[in-house]
Amino acid sequence: MTIGVVGAGQLGAMLALAGYPLGFDFLFLDRSARTPAGRFAPVLTGEFSDQALLRRLAEQCEVISFDWENISVEALRTATRSTRARIAPPLKALAAAQDRLAEKRTFERLGIGTTRFAAVDSLAALRRAMRHIGTPGVLKTRRFGYDGKGQRVLRSPADAEPAWTELGAAPLIYEEFVPFDYEVSIIGARSRRGEIAVYPLNRNYHADGILRLTVAPWPAPRLQRVAARSLRRVLEAFHYVGVLAIEFFVRDARLIANEMAPRVHNSGHWTIEGAATSQFENHVRAIAGMPLGSTRALGHAAMINLIGEMPPRQALLAEAGLHLHDYGKEPRPGRKLGHCTIVEPTAQARHNRSKALLRRLYPHLGIKP
Amino acid sequence: MTIGVVGAGQLGAMLALAGYPLGFDFLFLDRSARTPAGRFAPVLTGEFSDQALLRRLAEQCEVISFDWENISVEALRTATRSTRARIAPPLKALAAAQDRLAEKRTFERLGIGTTRFAAVDSLAALRRAMRHIGTPGVLKTRRFGYDGKGQRVLRSPADAEPAWTELGAAPLIYEEFVPFDYEVSIIGARSRRGEIAVYPLNRNYHADGILRLTVAPWPAPRLQRVAARSLRRVLEAFHYVGVLAIEFFVRDARLIANEMAPRVHNSGHWTIEGAATSQFENHVRAIAGMPLGSTRALGHAAMINLIGEMPPRQALLAEAGLHLHDYGKEPRPGRKLGHCTIVEPTAQARHNRSKALLRRLYPHLGIKP
Repeated sequence: MTIGVVGAGQLGAMLALAGYPLGFDFLFLDRSARTPAGRFAPVLTGEFSDQALLRRLAEQCEVISFDWENISVEALRTATRSTRARIAPPLKALAAAQDRLAEKRTFERLGIGTTRFAAVDSLAALRRAMRHIGTPGVLKTRRFGYDGKGQRVLRSPADAEPAWTELGAAPLIYEEFVPFDYEVSIIGARSRRGEIAVYPLNRNYHADGILRLTVAPWPAPRLQRVAARSLRRVLEAFHYVGVLAIEFFVRDARLIANEMAPRVHNSGHWTIEGAATSQFENHVRAIAGMPLGSTRALGHAAMINLIGEMPPRQALLAEAGLHLHDYGKEPRPGRKLGHCTIVEPTAQARHNRSKALLRRLYPHLGIKP
Repeated sequence: MTIGVVGAGQLGAMLALAGYPLGFDFLFLDRSARTPAGRFAPVLTGEFSDQALLRRLAEQCEVISFDWENISVEALRTATRSTRARIAPPLKALAAAQDRLAEKRTFERLGIGTTRFAAVDSLAALRRAMRHIGTPGVLKTRRFGYDGKGQRVLRSPADAEPAWTELGAAPLIYEEFVPFDYEVSIIGARSRRGEIAVYPLNRNYHADGILRLTVAPWPAPRLQRVAARSLRRVLEAFHYVGVLAIEFFVRDARLIANEMAPRVHNSGHWTIEGAATSQFENHVRAIAGMPLGSTRALGHAAMINLIGEMPPRQALLAEAGLHLHDYGKEPRPGRKLGHCTIVEPTAQARHNRSKALLRRLYPHLGIKP
């Protein structure tokens, strides 16, 4: 079976590395073959919305998935029509995750606590939303935002007009600003037969709007339960197939759903070495119609993103028990170039090691696990 | 860095899968691109001794390794002369492992217990060897034998002539027949800087001359110590770089070295999920000049080879905690098509699970772990 993946970035690359041992082949579609997955898989190169290219992908693959969400649902639906290719995760889930408004409404409809929000399509609507929801708040583009891009914090009515001028060309959403205590995420998979498997909770640490550190399992049984219940609701509502992630703010020990990602997720990279079955393998198993593997944690994992430039490989590999993942990308400020994972026998050992590693790798960020 | 590998079989494929996350690229040389590594790496196709091809490999790679030993040492030495490519493991070790006589002499020279043996290059020499060493004994081709091929058990003087007629076209060795209790193997790596890391001992179960099951760590501390000491001697004697395996017969709790393999080894496949760093990653680390990773076992592993035909994938993946490795090869009787590994928290759990799995997969073989 050949699995098609739209997007050949590191997530796609790790899907292929997890899927090859199961006997699956891969075909990617991306703007360039000089992408992480392009190192070891064929890539159809062109625009993500190129109908002819998407159709070729659909004709050569039994199932089509995607490794990021900024792709055209319409183009994918049209191109795969009257081909035998299934699409997984379902396009409805992709559409909901692409649009912050649809996403919030999904959370709301499923009884999943989220921030208050309002759609904004005019300066007047923005002013109304600010009055109704209050300040501070965050004005965000509904689509194509990631890692803090396309966002503006509004602190007073005077901020409305400049923010509107800057972002107003696109459909927007205004959200309550939540001064949260920290961020967690939950990741799980649903198979074609409807089995669901949920990973232990991740605690995520950001700097400059980019994920830097994930620690899992995060020992918060009540939060784990609530987060897993929310995830199940979304998985079932969409008759979902594949891996799904939801990020939550934690405020006063309550979960506030922030966003969902209909794909494998950066905060789940620790599962490669830290769980019985990785998120990548479970995504492949699910979309290929196979049973899911165990999501049990094998120890206490910490995953550190390698951003902007790669530390010397020799020094990283000299760290006892460190697992390196170099995506083979050109260095560029703020770019995710790789990650590394440690799996320790106790939470205390993980704490000490990840603190020491972070101090060594990113002393200026001041992240304190 | 691009790593060249002569041989694109499953061992080469697993080397690439282990090396990609470290940021290395791979280039293979094999008779066909329709090989396990050819699924996700470029392959120069032609004969293994093709000088022009070997030279192209040497020109495009910083280091050249091999995934099986039946390749021409001379061709490799000549082709890489006056290129910048290093060869690892060293050709001297490859040469010794290719020739059962050189191999036995290596063991003898290093004080590693082995079977009594004699070189045989005539029927008269065979008769002398049989008188000297006794019967039963095994007449073997010195080169190109594996999985029991090119061997004949001789039980009485009358067996000499037919065996000589059958095998005598090639250089031969006559060895004492050892009615051993069971087989173990030890695997370890040596880095360019001379660090050595040794994995826990493997116990191997064969049927029809093919490895079927490996169980590791095999709890025999004294055998582990003796085997590791032997391995270190060979690694140091050759200034070895990369992974090396030695197989031993165990008789009355004594180790008798049978053969060595200058490469990753089938009995070490369990290290992918069962050790902190797999044999494949450690081979890549070593030959690329990187520090070695920990060889610590993560639990109690059992690896079952999938031979002749693949069991249905759906059923295998439904086994809790089973890790599947499908090499993507065409089925053929006696052919290694894949393997699967379980890692259990206790030796007893491993025993029960591997017994149940074997009963399911290969009821007719009667292997009893």
